[in-house]
Amino acid sequence: MTTTEDWIRTAREVAAKLAVDAVERDRANETPYQEVQLLKDSGLVTLLGPVEHGGGGQTWETAYRVIREVARGDGSIGQLLGYHYLWAWAARLVATDEQIAVVEELYTRDKLFFGGAVNPRDSDLTITEDGDELVYRGHKSFSTGSKVSDLTVLEGVLEGTGDHVFAIVPSKQEGIVFHDDWDNIGQRLTESGSVTINDVRVPWSSAAGYVDKKFRPLTYNTLNVPTIQLVFTNFYLGIAQGALDTALAYTRDNTRAWPYGGDNKESAGEEWYILDGYGDLQAKLWAAEALTDKVGAEISQVLHAPREELTPEARGEVAVRIAAAKQRVIDTGLEIGTRIFELTGARASATKYGLDLFWRNLRTHSLHDPVAYKRREVGAYALLGQLPEPTWYT
Amino acid sequence: MTTTEDWIRTAREVAAKLAVDAVERDRANETPYQEVQLLKDSGLVTLLGPVEHGGGGQTWETAYRVIREVARGDGSIGQLLGYHYLWAWAARLVATDEQIAVVEELYTRDKLFFGGAVNPRDSDLTITEDGDELVYRGHKSFSTGSKVSDLTVLEGVLEGTGDHVFAIVPSKQEGIVFHDDWDNIGQRLTESGSVTINDVRVPWSSAAGYVDKKFRPLTYNTLNVPTIQLVFTNFYLGIAQGALDTALAYTRDNTRAWPYGGDNKESAGEEWYILDGYGDLQAKLWAAEALTDKVGAEISQVLHAPREELTPEARGEVAVRIAAAKQRVIDTGLEIGTRIFELTGARASATKYGLDLFWRNLRTHSLHDPVAYKRREVGAYALLGQLPEPTWYT
Amino acid sequence: MTTTEDWIRTAREVAAKLAVDAVERDRANETPYQEVQLLKDSGLVTLLGPVEHGGGGQTWETAYRVIREVARGDGSIGQLLGYHYLWAWAARLVATDEQIAVVEELYTRDKLFFGGAVNPRDSDLTITEDGDELVYRGHKSFSTGSKVSDLTVLEGVLEGTGDHVFAIVPSKQEGIVFHDDWDNIGQRLTESGSVTINDVRVPWSSAAGYVDKKFRPLTYNTLNVPTIQLVFTNFYLGIAQGALDTALAYTRDNTRAWPYGGDNKESAGEEWYILDGYGDLQAKLWAAEALTDKVGAEISQVLHAPREELTPEARGEVAVRIAAAKQRVIDTGLEIGTRIFELTGARASATKYGLDLFWRNLRTHSLHDPVAYKRREVGAYALLGQLPEPTWYT
Amino acid sequence: MTTTEDWIRTAREVAAKLAVDAVERDRANETPYQEVQLLKDSGLVTLLGPVEHGGGGQTWETAYRVIREVARGDGSIGQLLGYHYLWAWAARLVATDEQIAVVEELYTRDKLFFGGAVNPRDSDLTITEDGDELVYRGHKSFSTGSKVSDLTVLEGVLEGTGDHVFAIVPSKQEGIVFHDDWDNIGQRLTESGSVTINDVRVPWSSAAGYVDKKFRPLTYNTLNVPTIQLVFTNFYLGIAQGALDTALAYTRDNTRAWPYGGDNKESAGEEWYILDGYGDLQAKLWAAEALTDKVGAEISQVLHAPREELTPEARGEVAVRIAAAKQRVIDTGLEIGTRIFELTGARASATKYGLDLFWRNLRTHSLHDPVAYKRREVGAYALLGQLPEPTWYT
Repeated sequence: MTTTEDWIRTAREVAAKLAVDAVERDRANETPYQEVQLLKDSGLVTLLGPVEHGGGGQTWETAYRVIREVARGDGSIGQLLGYHYLWAWAARLVATDEQIAVVEELYTRDKLFFGGAVNPRDSDLTITEDGDELVYRGHKSFSTGSKVSDLTVLEGVLEGTGDHVFAIVPSKQEGIVFHDDWDNIGQRLTESGSVTINDVRVPWSSAAGYVDKKFRPLTYNTLNVPTIQLVFTNFYLGIAQGALDTALAYTRDNTRAWPYGGDNKESAGEEWYILDGYGDLQAKLWAAEALTDKVGAEISQVLHAPREELTPEARGEVAVRIAAAKQRVIDTGLEIGTRIFELTGARASATKYGLDLFWRNLRTHSLHDPVAYKRREVGAYALLGQLPEPTWYT
Repeated sequence: MTTTEDWIRTAREVAAKLAVDAVERDRANETPYQEVQLLKDSGLVTLLGPVEHGGGGQTWETAYRVIREVARGDGSIGQLLGYHYLWAWAARLVATDEQIAVVEELYTRDKLFFGGAVNPRDSDLTITEDGDELVYRGHKSFSTGSKVSDLTVLEGVLEGTGDHVFAIVPSKQEGIVFHDDWDNIGQRLTESGSVTINDVRVPWSSAAGYVDKKFRPLTYNTLNVPTIQLVFTNFYLGIAQGALDTALAYTRDNTRAWPYGGDNKESAGEEWYILDGYGDLQAKLWAAEALTDKVGAEISQVLHAPREELTPEARGEVAVRIAAAKQRVIDTGLEIGTRIFELTGARASATKYGLDLFWRNLRTHSLHDPVAYKRREVGAYALLGQLPEPTWYT
Repeated sequence: MTTTEDWIRTAREVAAKLAVDAVERDRANETPYQEVQLLKDSGLVTLLGPVEHGGGGQTWETAYRVIREVARGDGSIGQLLGYHYLWAWAARLVATDEQIAVVEELYTRDKLFFGGAVNPRDSDLTITEDGDELVYRGHKSFSTGSKVSDLTVLEGVLEGTGDHVFAIVPSKQEGIVFHDDWDNIGQRLTESGSVTINDVRVPWSSAAGYVDKKFRPLTYNTLNVPTIQLVFTNFYLGIAQGALDTALAYTRDNTRAWPYGGDNKESAGEEWYILDGYGDLQAKLWAAEALTDKVGAEISQVLHAPREELTPEARGEVAVRIAAAKQRVIDTGLEIGTRIFELTGARASATKYGLDLFWRNLRTHSLHDPVAYKRREVGAYALLGQLPEPTWYT
Repeated sequence: MTTTEDWIRTAREVAAKLAVDAVERDRANETPYQEVQLLKDSGLVTLLGPVEHGGGGQTWETAYRVIREVARGDGSIGQLLGYHYLWAWAARLVATDEQIAVVEELYTRDKLFFGGAVNPRDSDLTITEDGDELVYRGHKSFSTGSKVSDLTVLEGVLEGTGDHVFAIVPSKQEGIVFHDDWDNIGQRLTESGSVTINDVRVPWSSAAGYVDKKFRPLTYNTLNVPTIQLVFTNFYLGIAQGALDTALAYTRDNTRAWPYGGDNKESAGEEWYILDGYGDLQAKLWAAEALTDKVGAEISQVLHAPREELTPEARGEVAVRIAAAKQRVIDTGLEIGTRIFELTGARASATKYGLDLFWRNLRTHSLHDPVAYKRREVGAYALLGQLPEPTWYT
């Protein structure tokens, strides 16, 4: 795969395979080992990895589109891949050049899959120093990837300081206990349950970005939040596209004209309200997609430029644009997830069609952080020129 | 129970019991024998029945409010009760005075529960004449009540004629086979699966409204559609109210203030967006409720007036008003079912809270007939003074 | 006029006269002396006045519907009448029984028209004591009625105290200077310009509710805000109804079917999108109306009960309900004011039809206070049971 | 001006000049001679003209953005410029290479301004043949540009045939009578009144695209409708942007915090509902803009490719995409035009601010053809793969 189109094509093939039984797998709610294996086998997991180690050497612009395509077939797996890309980039965000080289070679060569224990609504993990080692300890309520991951990104605060320290560790170790307790109404196959970290030991040399136990902060470090927010936006968009695709196919195949109360129609395709409804939803989806593509190009340029060059202004502006795209995709996607039923008809509510999966998937993850605050962020920028204050988390 | 308030209070008590495990029962998807028994034991099933046989002798205005209250606790059971009221009134709609007396005494005295095999999207059952008997035969895709009903309303067309004949028969008989195949994303406990009618025999004397094998039509016969459409509207409204109730309670008990990006709030109750959001939804719900109450009073007056007095104009106008109320309740309810999540937060998407039940319930049944045609109906009345043409079904 | 229907009929006759040249009068922007005279001649101004002095002795429930009907023909005149009713009731809100008797006899017998200088966004007028007299001085930015009023309600704060004092004074006097500077995009004929109060003298005995220079507050005093907010709601609703009426008539008379791109339609009345659009707007308007009627009955009961009986809870609850009705009417009315153009077509944008008048009228006055705060008010009640804190103004 | 940025900058300078008195000029409603002169002096009128004759040689992608920028300052003048570009391109759409060369040299060298008498809702002009000449005769209800144009595009049907013939003629001639009767609620300065064509004579050699009195049709001819529809979309978008710009500036300069009912805010910029509201509108506008830009690039590529290459499929797909963009811009713009008042406050409704101009401008022209049919068009494509049937007009 050398061109963007190659990657998109592969993503579509993966999505097509996933779509076949997405509804059944949602119901079965089993750990998606096979699905992650499919992501590995297809090569998608190393899209961002260095070419010299067998990676794709692609940009985030392409990564975002790939996430979206995969989510079009299965929202959960799109999320898993998107989070993986973010964690795979965590080294770039905060680590030293040497650390980056090590991590990227490691995960690319062996096609390793990332998870993370970095949830902003919980207290941080605590870290104690023990000679040359750091010892992580604590609990996170949500941790996407967990059991299906090979590597886990830990984040904690060093005892007695305010210093946040990231480290990448093997997921399969005694000190990491995944509780398998993610049972939510949507994105069910994301293994997003809670995790307990019991004395996970990390050499100081693996503390991302630390040189002689000191961290030299860059604005670039704070790209984690806009980057992942646009990951969200893209798998939301994929879910919305999947919903519209599925509904259109259903209407074509199954929906009958309504026999009462108006003109005599022969087929659903002659029903004005069905054409009007799909036209409205398609137009909204195209607009949301256009903005998502545009801001994808914007942040991609930022992410692939030299790290030192990023100014707080540039970081803030792209964050605001992403906050806007996210709003449009959520609003549009929820509307699509709800209104498709009116365009498919009563029998489309049968459980076997699983047409509610899209709404449930989107509704669930779009609660990650309040979209109202994203509106506020965009409004503060438009009105006052304010940029969102970056922290480790927002 | 002598006053309207008594009936509402009882309905609320029933709803409170149902609400306790509505989420679990939705998941278990078992036949609601106990729930129907609760409706019988509470006396709600005979609300419309004659006082002399132990019935409540109440009006439809009260019946509608009772349906709504029950649906507030459990949308499925609200639907079952609402359909029961309609079928219990079927005799009044089409039968002779003598037949009405018999049916009302029968079901009131023994607290019998009604189901029906009268689905407009299927072909009618066929009826053949066999001496003094009519023999019903055929299949219906949807039949609310089915296994939990004691009596079933059949509808078919007499062979060689265009005559529709209704009859009320015992549900438990060999010739009625319920297929137990209702497996949809919402209103799961309504036993709305398909039914096969194999040579169910009915004496000509039970053919509702037929005297000497002749039917004398009245405009009143055509009230079935507006009456049931407002039944729908009321259990939709109850579902929407249940959604808002449940979300408000969740927010009060569980939702935390958002720690980033704005003013420092102590509690969810200080979050502007939560207050704003609930205020918007509550106002919309009150408006939908006010219209539903108003048209409930309007059709109730029509339903309890002498049957001969009803003009096509009065029938048409109340049908149009109900079509309007239905739209407002569906739109409002779906918005509530979706937006409550933004006001409760990420953890509210846990399966155990079942906060998606309301959207699923409302989304499922509101597909009964296209709401677009209801908009068209109201528009044709507003613009052209046209009244919806009554048929046996619409 | 003895029945409610009589009053409504009269209001409709007045509205029909006003509607004839409402568009031209909006453009001419002349002081509505004739229109106020019409309100007097029709008897509408004394609807709430005591029967023994020639008044109608009607309730607020009727007053609200009359305001609405008049606004249906001309939003500005509906506002003038509504404010008049509120000012005519000001004595009941705060004055002593003796003062009430005097004011009601005065305005009813002579069919006097009220205006007011009581705008909450400005500083209060200051009042200085001069022997037995109070001297009002100051400026108000907005003062509905002004030049067309016979009596003006003044409000100020007594120097050196926090005491608010209301008084009713003749509008035509040297000390009251109306600046005739209301030039806004809507409600243009409401004479809502600024006013300067230059040493207007009022005997202490006219200070509403003061006995021996002391005021004994009652919760009832604080009904001014909910009462006027529902006045607003009703003339907004009338404007919205006028918009829909006018558009429907235009479509019937002038709109042609669209010749391209779909089925061949003969007339606008066969265009699905026109029927669908009007059906949607009509349903929304009926819902807004139903809620407005319901809360009109609620506050009317409160306003006509003994003043001492009103509890803060009852006051608060009715205020919240009115806040909800207001939201629904504003949202619905603005949508109607905008979307009617899509249902009437390109030629309906000719200035001569003045179809933008409804949107301009509603848009202008609905800014009186931020509707977002009304959503918040309803939300705080729904979530927390909080009641809006009454002040002299809100 | 050599780069796109140069042209955008110039357009912004023009817009800034126009914005200064746009509100006053709207009210005065005078023929925009000066404004058209400004378009000529700035060089914008020859943006698409050949470089060798002094034109800009730019693409439509740039033209669309320039239209948008001008409309941001004054919607009417944006429309005039946009129509000018379309008429200036009319030769390319239908004429022979020789005719194109003549027309482009003519208008570019002399900076001539185009108008047109080509309104689809009227009957066509009739054309009679008189030796080597064609004689146009008839009436058009709407004709943008009229009195301010130097050249007019005529369109008619040759008597006794179904052949449409376009020709470009001088606007100032006896046979063309502009009736100066455009008096609508918006886009008031577009000189869009009716026109009578009295025996306007055109040599057969000027009949666009005719060779030996025969026309060889190409799919490219039918690009007139998508091209102008995206002209519409761009000046609508400019109007919406102008609305948001103006409102934001107003809020920053004038809006006060609301003193009641919530937290104590110091300034409007701390009001949650204002930030939330602007954030929502800005996000929607960015999405509409992103889609408009995307389809602008799409049709620009088509318009600048060799004419013979265009397939009906490519034409249809770009038309559908434009239909989608148009919907999003209209919906978003009307929402902005209405909701900005809630974010600016009561005093912003003063006539002097003219904040209603945006809604009036957008509302007026967006009625050009029913947006419902555009939804239907997009829906028919999404559901059935149907492409809009091109005619001379749609």
